[in-house]
Amino acid sequence: MRIMSFSHLSHLDCSRCAERYDADEIHNLCVCGSPLLARYDLGSVTVGPADISGRPPTLWRYHEVLPVRERVISMGEGMTPLLPLPALGREFGVPGLLMKDDGLFPTGSFKARGAAVGVSRAAELGVRAFAMPSNGNASAAWTAYGARAGMRSVVAMPESAPLINRTESAITGSQLYLVRGHIGDCGQMIGALIARSNGELFDASTLKEPYRIEGKKTMGYEIVEQLGWRSPDVIVYPTGGGVGLIGIYKALREMRELGWLTGPLPRLVAVQAGGCAPIVAAFEAGATESTAWPNPKTVAFGITVPKPLGDFLILEALYATNGTAIAVDDTDTLATQALCARLEGTFICPEGAATLAAVRRLRDSGWIKETEEVVVLNTGSGLKYPAEVDVPTLDPGDRLG
Amino acid sequence: MRIMSFSHLSHLDCSRCAERYDADEIHNLCVCGSPLLARYDLGSVTVGPADISGRPPTLWRYHEVLPVRERVISMGEGMTPLLPLPALGREFGVPGLLMKDDGLFPTGSFKARGAAVGVSRAAELGVRAFAMPSNGNASAAWTAYGARAGMRSVVAMPESAPLINRTESAITGSQLYLVRGHIGDCGQMIGALIARSNGELFDASTLKEPYRIEGKKTMGYEIVEQLGWRSPDVIVYPTGGGVGLIGIYKALREMRELGWLTGPLPRLVAVQAGGCAPIVAAFEAGATESTAWPNPKTVAFGITVPKPLGDFLILEALYATNGTAIAVDDTDTLATQALCARLEGTFICPEGAATLAAVRRLRDSGWIKETEEVVVLNTGSGLKYPAEVDVPTLDPGDRLG
Repeated sequence: MRIMSFSHLSHLDCSRCAERYDADEIHNLCVCGSPLLARYDLGSVTVGPADISGRPPTLWRYHEVLPVRERVISMGEGMTPLLPLPALGREFGVPGLLMKDDGLFPTGSFKARGAAVGVSRAAELGVRAFAMPSNGNASAAWTAYGARAGMRSVVAMPESAPLINRTESAITGSQLYLVRGHIGDCGQMIGALIARSNGELFDASTLKEPYRIEGKKTMGYEIVEQLGWRSPDVIVYPTGGGVGLIGIYKALREMRELGWLTGPLPRLVAVQAGGCAPIVAAFEAGATESTAWPNPKTVAFGITVPKPLGDFLILEALYATNGTAIAVDDTDTLATQALCARLEGTFICPEGAATLAAVRRLRDSGWIKETEEVVVLNTGSGLKYPAEVDVPTLDPGDRLG
Repeated sequence: MRIMSFSHLSHLDCSRCAERYDADEIHNLCVCGSPLLARYDLGSVTVGPADISGRPPTLWRYHEVLPVRERVISMGEGMTPLLPLPALGREFGVPGLLMKDDGLFPTGSFKARGAAVGVSRAAELGVRAFAMPSNGNASAAWTAYGARAGMRSVVAMPESAPLINRTESAITGSQLYLVRGHIGDCGQMIGALIARSNGELFDASTLKEPYRIEGKKTMGYEIVEQLGWRSPDVIVYPTGGGVGLIGIYKALREMRELGWLTGPLPRLVAVQAGGCAPIVAAFEAGATESTAWPNPKTVAFGITVPKPLGDFLILEALYATNGTAIAVDDTDTLATQALCARLEGTFICPEGAATLAAVRRLRDSGWIKETEEVVVLNTGSGLKYPAEVDVPTLDPGDRLG
C-alpha cells in the first residue's frame, strides 16, 4: 500500500523543451532558458472534493497538489471571497458577474499566493537568501514570507512603484533599492547581483523559480471549489507577468486529470493596459510570443511588464480555451474602480478594475453573452493606492451639510 | 415544534437601567442615555459547534446569535487567521503567543465586522441614510457596506486621520467632511446634523446603534472556535471605543450560556496609548467610569478616544475577568510594529502593535506567566499606514549592493 504524502510532487518539466529535472534540488530556468513547471503524481492522489471541503480555509487545503513537502510558512492565506457583483452586473448586462477578491491577503495582494508557496519550498530546499526585481506587490509578499522564514532578501523596484510597497519591503528588513526605470531595468541589475553572489543569492524573479506559479494556481482551485466544483464560462485576468493566468490554466487541467472537474474549460481572458499591451498585440497577430512593449506606462502598475518571460504560456492558454486578450485605457480603469466602489462597496486595485472595464467592453461587443457566468480576478486591495480627494475641511462647531 | 430561525434575536436591553426595547424597531440609545445590547433566545438555539464547523468561513456562520433576520450584506468578511507568533513569543518569553489578524478584511480593519452586521440590520429595518463621526477605519467600513446596501452616508473625520481613510470613504460616494479637531468634535457636529435631519439620517455612531457590537463580538466566537472551542488564558485588545472588548466579553458569556464553552473566562486586557489612556486611569483608580482625557494624541490613531461611551462596560469586563489595563508609549508601539514585521513577516497596524508591546511589559512584570496562552488582537492592516522610508535610489545599470 502506498503511503499518503502531504505533497505528491514528482518532478519539474521544462515548459518548452520537455527536459526533466529533479524537484528536490534547487533549480531556476531550464538550460534552454525557459520556465520549469512542477509536475505531480496525480494518479496517486486519493482525496477528492469531499475531503477538501472540511479543511481549514487556506490555500494549503490543496496540499497534495502543492510542492511543499513539510515546512509550510503560512500567514493564513487563501480561500478569499468569490463575491457576487449584482449591481455592476446589472449595469454591464452580465447578471452572473462574480469577483474573486484577492485583496484579502497578507500584504494586500494575490502575490501572497505565490510567495507563501515559493518561500516555503525554497526554505525547505535550503535557500537562505534571495533577490528579485518587483513592481512592488511581489516584493511586499516575498519579503514578508521571507522574513517569516528567516531569509535575507534584496529587492530592486521602480521608484514609481506605490509608496506603500516601499514601506512594506523595508519594514521586514529587506535590502531595498529604488531604480529610475521599469521592472526590466530592475531585473537586469538583480541578475548581475545574483551572478556576482556565487550562489549565495537565489533568483526569485517571476517564472525564474518554479514554485510561485503553484501558489498562484490555487486561484483556479478555489474558484472551482467555490462554484461547487464546476467552471464558470469565462475567467478574466489582469495580465502583467501572467503567472496567475498560466497557473489557473494549469490548475484547470490538473483538476480534470484528477477527476475533480468535468465539462468544458472556461474561456480565459488576458486584460492589459493600453499603455503596456504586448500580449494583446501578440494575440491579435496570432503570434505565439510577444514583442517587448516600448515605454510601458499605466496606472495599473502591477501589470506594467513589457515582455513577460512566460508570454508563450499565456498565449497558449488563451488559444487553447478560445479566450481572448483586450487592452483597457487608464481613464476607463479608474472610472470603473470608482463605479465598483459606489455600486458594490468594494475598493479594488486598478488592475482589478481593468478586468471589470474589460467585461463591459466584451459584453458590448457580444463576446460575453448575457447568460454567461463571468469571474474577474481582483488581484489586490485598493488600500495600497491612497489618492488625495477633494474634501471640505471645517473647524469644530461648524455646521455640516 | 418551534420553527428554526436564521436569527434568534429576541429584544434589546439597556446596558445600564435594564429598560427593554422591541428589537424590530429602529433604536439608538436608551432613554437613560446608555447603549442598548441585543439579546437572544439562546435556549432555542439547537445548533452547536459541530454544525458550525461545516459552514462557510465568514462571520455569518454564527447567524443564530447575530441580529440579522434575512438581508445579509456581505463582502465575505470574517474567520480571519489566528496566527502563531513563535519568534516574537520567544523574544517576549511567551511561547503561546497568538495573533488574531483582523487586518484581513474588506476595508483593511476589524471595523468591517461591526459594519457588515450593523449595516445589514439597519437596511432590513428600513434605514436609507446614516451619519457618523469616525477616526477613519469605521467610516471606511460603514460607507463601504452602506454603498453595497444602497444607503446614503455623511461622515465627519479628524483631518489628522490617515489619508487612505479619506480615499476609502470618498470613493464609495459618501459625503465626507474633515474637521480640525478630534473625534469628540466630529461627534458633536454629526449629532447636530442628525438633530436637524427630521429622522432622515440614522445615527450610526459607536454604541449609539445597538448592532455593530454584535458584529464585533464574532472576534470572540472565532477565537474560541479556532482554539477548538476553548478560551485562551489572556486576550489583549487595543482599546479606543472598546466595542470589540465589550463584544468579546458578551460573546464569551453567550457561549457559556449556549454550552459551547466551559471553564474559566480569559483575563481581558485593555491596551491604550500613553497619550490617550482614560480607561487605564479609571482602572487604576478602581473607578466604574472614565474621565475625559485632555489633548488626546497617539500614532495609534484608531484608539484616540478621550471618553468612550461604553467606558463602564469596558471596566466591568476587565474587573469581572481579573483582567487589567495598560498604557504603551508610541515609541514602544512603533518599535514593536517593526520587530513584528522583521521576525514574523506580518505588517500590522500601530493599534495591533500596541497590544504586543503590552504583552512584553505584562510578561516582564509577571502578570502574564510563561506557560500562558495569549491572544492579541491586530485590528487592522499596516497597509493603511504608508511611511516614507530611506531607500537608495539608483539609475538603470547601476551596481547593486
